[in-house]
Amino acid sequence: MTTNDALIARRARTIGPYSPLFYDEPLHFVSGQGVWLTEASGARFLDGYNNVPHVGHANPRVVQALTEQAACLNIHTRYLNERVLDYSEQLLATFAPGLDRVLYGNSGSEANELAIRIARQLTGATGMLVSDYSYHGTTITLAQLTTGLRTREPLAPHVRAIRVPDLDSDPRPAELVLAAALQDVDDAIAELQEAGFGLAASLFDPLFSTEGMARVPEGYVAGLVDRVRHAGGLVIADEVQSGFGRTGSHMWGHAWAGMDPDLVTLGKPMGNGHPMSAVVTSERVLDEFGSRNEFFNTFAGNPVSAAVGQAVLDEMAAEQLMARAERLGTEARSAFDSLATRHDFVSAAKGVGMFLGLEFALDGHPAPELAKQVVEGVKRRGVLISRIGRHESVLKVRPPLAFGHAELPALLGALGEALDEASSTL
Amino acid sequence: MTTNDALIARRARTIGPYSPLFYDEPLHFVSGQGVWLTEASGARFLDGYNNVPHVGHANPRVVQALTEQAACLNIHTRYLNERVLDYSEQLLATFAPGLDRVLYGNSGSEANELAIRIARQLTGATGMLVSDYSYHGTTITLAQLTTGLRTREPLAPHVRAIRVPDLDSDPRPAELVLAAALQDVDDAIAELQEAGFGLAASLFDPLFSTEGMARVPEGYVAGLVDRVRHAGGLVIADEVQSGFGRTGSHMWGHAWAGMDPDLVTLGKPMGNGHPMSAVVTSERVLDEFGSRNEFFNTFAGNPVSAAVGQAVLDEMAAEQLMARAERLGTEARSAFDSLATRHDFVSAAKGVGMFLGLEFALDGHPAPELAKQVVEGVKRRGVLISRIGRHESVLKVRPPLAFGHAELPALLGALGEALDEASSTL
Repeated sequence: MTTNDALIARRARTIGPYSPLFYDEPLHFVSGQGVWLTEASGARFLDGYNNVPHVGHANPRVVQALTEQAACLNIHTRYLNERVLDYSEQLLATFAPGLDRVLYGNSGSEANELAIRIARQLTGATGMLVSDYSYHGTTITLAQLTTGLRTREPLAPHVRAIRVPDLDSDPRPAELVLAAALQDVDDAIAELQEAGFGLAASLFDPLFSTEGMARVPEGYVAGLVDRVRHAGGLVIADEVQSGFGRTGSHMWGHAWAGMDPDLVTLGKPMGNGHPMSAVVTSERVLDEFGSRNEFFNTFAGNPVSAAVGQAVLDEMAAEQLMARAERLGTEARSAFDSLATRHDFVSAAKGVGMFLGLEFALDGHPAPELAKQVVEGVKRRGVLISRIGRHESVLKVRPPLAFGHAELPALLGALGEALDEASSTL
Repeated sequence: MTTNDALIARRARTIGPYSPLFYDEPLHFVSGQGVWLTEASGARFLDGYNNVPHVGHANPRVVQALTEQAACLNIHTRYLNERVLDYSEQLLATFAPGLDRVLYGNSGSEANELAIRIARQLTGATGMLVSDYSYHGTTITLAQLTTGLRTREPLAPHVRAIRVPDLDSDPRPAELVLAAALQDVDDAIAELQEAGFGLAASLFDPLFSTEGMARVPEGYVAGLVDRVRHAGGLVIADEVQSGFGRTGSHMWGHAWAGMDPDLVTLGKPMGNGHPMSAVVTSERVLDEFGSRNEFFNTFAGNPVSAAVGQAVLDEMAAEQLMARAERLGTEARSAFDSLATRHDFVSAAKGVGMFLGLEFALDGHPAPELAKQVVEGVKRRGVLISRIGRHESVLKVRPPLAFGHAELPALLGALGEALDEASSTL
């Protein structure tokens, strides 16, 4: 029995055999630093996938902040603590003026739950508008609106899932695509209203990541937001993937997309792996909710999480990671465009900033097996990426934002070779 | 403007004015060590309240484990990692043989959500049986079964809340109390079945903490469990307050209470403040859920949380904290019994292990104002406690399990003086 087999057997007997693992042959990492992970065998892998370790694996500034605050005090917000206020002010300063209040949680699921809870209470409605291929968390309410992952729960009656348009795979003119997609929004909202649910909120990732980084027509996001507001719903932007400078040009995906949200949910990269999340909203929205509920989250907003959150923002500023993501993302996207030109089976290059992809199709049909083959081929060359989209036919390249110019050739080299290899098997 | 006023103003402008604070004059802590917290003024307080810092504030073993693992690797469970398996095996070894699988989360809310989600899927039912004064978390599903905290959501139609009997405040003979309470259970289950919801699960804290540490009649828990099982429901034990040796005699509250659960949810003390939680269950229950859902929690089960969890268990063993809680709890309870005898307005001494209380009543009516007065009086003497129960008339003394024999006189002294002071105002 190999070490990996032994670990897999131990997993089956503890966390169970269904806990998902990446790759045909799973990887067993024992340490990480920056954008590199080291396997038990000693082999090093370049991380082109993980967005949680935003400022790099085992980032020294984050580890120091974590250590110092944990050695000093970790306590809940029912006592006064300055650290959570320092962090809140620093975080809120990155948002537009109207988004000036923050409630903390411990995971993206908790943030989305809270945002929906607030929206339902404020509107008196329960209807939810989501994408027909999306994922927002693990709770019952979120499982009932999950469309991009296998869950036993059916879509709840008060949820409508709309197809997010993608100009890369829709051959019609953009104006037609836009008109049809907004008609879908109108229809979904009308259905919710006729069924008596009304509209509590829309919940979308401004980058449409899970959808495969859909390239939506100009005017789609604004039209969607208008229609949600007109129906009395709130707009929730799920920034769990798109936030913290991922797009390069903007700190928040909603700003990049021109989405103007009432509630913004933050997760994954926020604490560089330390479990923390937040809902950012306005004074008006928070006051409505706060005055009518005793709301308290035991762990959330503790000074250790706040210190970690500060260290992430400080590191982003010190290393100018957003500007780097913009420069590097532009360069990488241009290389992805070239790869798309070189291979017939690459139907489109996708993405923005440090969230990029290549979409695969054969004879006009999505080619998930080919995408899988490339993900495994890239892995054999020591680089981690994954795939997304409704057909799992889009490569997902979403490295830590600490990814540097020096690492780009290794990523592009591995990708280029794996594409050539895949091409030769066709 | 005092420093506290300035902090409160900053809170209002960031996390909002509704974020709850303890005490008429809130406390502003800047550091903690063991069972002591230090205010900005330099004043030290003995912690007789907080159960999250289970092995003590800023516990060196925990901080070291946190630091070392965070400096090495923090990654999700879709790669192999030995640390989470080491911890899982160590944790599961503290449960009875049938409870041999664990799923991780980041908060008690996430654990209870997952347990209910599993129960609903397994039973095909939605009905929930809870106590009529309880709290299990912040999500929508949990808000809809919250009875012990102000939430805007009404109790959901599929939830029945039963009164947990308390021999300390019910003057009838125990047999009558038991028969009436089990009749309530029968009625509630029958209602759920007649309404077509069926019974998915019961969800109770085995210590009935929020209820005010109800002293239930012998046979109540067994009768409750039998009835739930007979109706096809699963039994969920919420160990967020009662677990990790709190009772002194047993590692888990359900073992202490003779509750035989299908699912156990863990939270607060698990990571000594590091956000982590778990659902412990059986192979059969996990397999049913695992095989039918793609379930994955980004942060949960990461090696940093696992290292922290291990350090908590190791510290409990090294310092024999459970045995200490049993010895000290017995001694403290005996002192509480004496205080109950000394003051007419103390209607009962309550609790077990290191979770103790005194119930206050005047002229046969609950006396929450008196309890509040004593909590504030104890605070003025440098000791932190709180109050619970449906009337908030029960003192809540639930210190870190690291509480030692040396600290007991300070706690009892402050409590005794505050009781005398309250007595003199009557």
